[in-house]
Amino acid sequence: MKYYPRPESGLDTHEVNLAIEEAFREHGTGNFQMPPKVYILFPNGDFRTMPAYLPAEQLAGIKCVNVHPANPGKGLPTVMALTIILDIETGLPLAILNATGLTDLRTGAAGAIATRYLARKRSVTLGLVGTGRQAAAQLEAISREIEITGVRVWSRKEESAEKFVKKFSRFDCRTSTLPFVCDSDVIVTTTPSRSPVVMDEWIQDGTHINAIGADAPGKEELDPAILKRSMVIVDDPVQAIHSGEINVPIRQGLFSPEEISGTLGEVVLGRKKRADNGQITVFDSTGLAIQDLAIAAIAMKNGKFLELEFP
Amino acid sequence: MKYYPRPESGLDTHEVNLAIEEAFREHGTGNFQMPPKVYILFPNGDFRTMPAYLPAEQLAGIKCVNVHPANPGKGLPTVMALTIILDIETGLPLAILNATGLTDLRTGAAGAIATRYLARKRSVTLGLVGTGRQAAAQLEAISREIEITGVRVWSRKEESAEKFVKKFSRFDCRTSTLPFVCDSDVIVTTTPSRSPVVMDEWIQDGTHINAIGADAPGKEELDPAILKRSMVIVDDPVQAIHSGEINVPIRQGLFSPEEISGTLGEVVLGRKKRADNGQITVFDSTGLAIQDLAIAAIAMKNGKFLELEFP
Repeated sequence: MKYYPRPESGLDTHEVNLAIEEAFREHGTGNFQMPPKVYILFPNGDFRTMPAYLPAEQLAGIKCVNVHPANPGKGLPTVMALTIILDIETGLPLAILNATGLTDLRTGAAGAIATRYLARKRSVTLGLVGTGRQAAAQLEAISREIEITGVRVWSRKEESAEKFVKKFSRFDCRTSTLPFVCDSDVIVTTTPSRSPVVMDEWIQDGTHINAIGADAPGKEELDPAILKRSMVIVDDPVQAIHSGEINVPIRQGLFSPEEISGTLGEVVLGRKKRADNGQITVFDSTGLAIQDLAIAAIAMKNGKFLELEFP
Repeated sequence: MKYYPRPESGLDTHEVNLAIEEAFREHGTGNFQMPPKVYILFPNGDFRTMPAYLPAEQLAGIKCVNVHPANPGKGLPTVMALTIILDIETGLPLAILNATGLTDLRTGAAGAIATRYLARKRSVTLGLVGTGRQAAAQLEAISREIEITGVRVWSRKEESAEKFVKKFSRFDCRTSTLPFVCDSDVIVTTTPSRSPVVMDEWIQDGTHINAIGADAPGKEELDPAILKRSMVIVDDPVQAIHSGEINVPIRQGLFSPEEISGTLGEVVLGRKKRADNGQITVFDSTGLAIQDLAIAAIAMKNGKFLELEFP
């Protein structure tokens, strides 16, 4: 059994994007096992168990991931993860991976694939609402799939936005007000908000939005009116209804599961696409266990590991 | 983050039994989180994900365990397991344990605790139906809780029974026919059977039975008529109905969930006990994630570990 302490180092972002695209293709065909995430609730956070099996790729395993919002004050990441990969023939654990960095990358990759298929142009302005680790991962991943001509950035804390802009000075990157950030071809929201941050009146026709932040019941970043005039694509309907961007509007009766237009897997398979250049498209990402398997598989190809005694 | 490659070595069986008793006490009070096991099905086996949280012991984590019946032919155990223990305040993974041996021990301990509380005498004859790793674990664990005056052993393969008897020659241990094995004060069944092996007419009044083998839908070791004349105690009602000894009789309409007399936790708390010396008692064990947490906690106290880089 191998342990990979830094499996994200040396990974090529475009290669990650293609592996995640392949996982969504499998999801679109229905050839997978992926029971709903199981939540355990702690006083200051939670942890989630995400098992899955992709027969076509002979890949199976489980990711175990926590969310503890107060961690940065203690010098730890909010989200930390481990992935276990099993041999399908014998059930033997083949590898354990530190999946903290991989989780950032595979979520960024889903946003990049959604943007490649759903944005109306190959060359876009990008608006980032939120400037944490996931905003960085989205920017890196999207920039490998389409051309970014300019980036506008907003954070609740102005200094975070300024720090982000400095870090990504190789892009034409500047801070701005929320309405101006939202006047972009592609918008990516990555905040932990529990009420709408992005208002309907700021969104132009033809915009594509990656709604990434909402990944637990009660979380919400978009004015529900945006969803009503959009083509809403989810990563997985069960997870999106439970904990994605649409979970609060559904609970409030402002959106219904029948209004979901399709899954990213169906988009990758060419079964769903934007109707015209004026349509607004929203990708509601919750994060799938099959993404974790797919990125673990490519990380194991060249990653440095330690051999552990087992069984 | 620590890795424990052999955490079962050096553990005292009685100490394990007491830790498992404590876990069942917590289960009896209802102060725990333990979502149902999640199953992923492979062509030749399965794997199960078992997360849990015991607030009173400040213990949380997850066990990941496979069942691949053809493994012994490939030189691997049928069942292999890993347990991850998390820090509750931060979600940081504190330890990963090779839980293959621990799984045997914690299941043996549940049988020992059930026997201590439910057998009608402190000094008993023991009948073992099945002679695999779990039969050995049950014998070791039970012998630490009550006196065993003789052991009768049966296996489908006679040579397995003979090998077992040789290995446990320190007990008054001999092979026998099934009816004679079942004419014991305490019977332990540990076979992978999918139809009844132990018949009703062989069971004397006052017998206690640990029904261990059935841990997946379709598995069954006891004639359902035994259940009808017994006090049936389960480790957890949800799991027992889904995959324990009672799962097949319930599906066949021969037993109903209302006929469950109680849980081992309620027995440990003194809320349930055998009515009289004539009553037959059956403990239906499926294996709980809180048992895995409890044994991991004591294994981490003195076990040898390797420090792994994380996060």
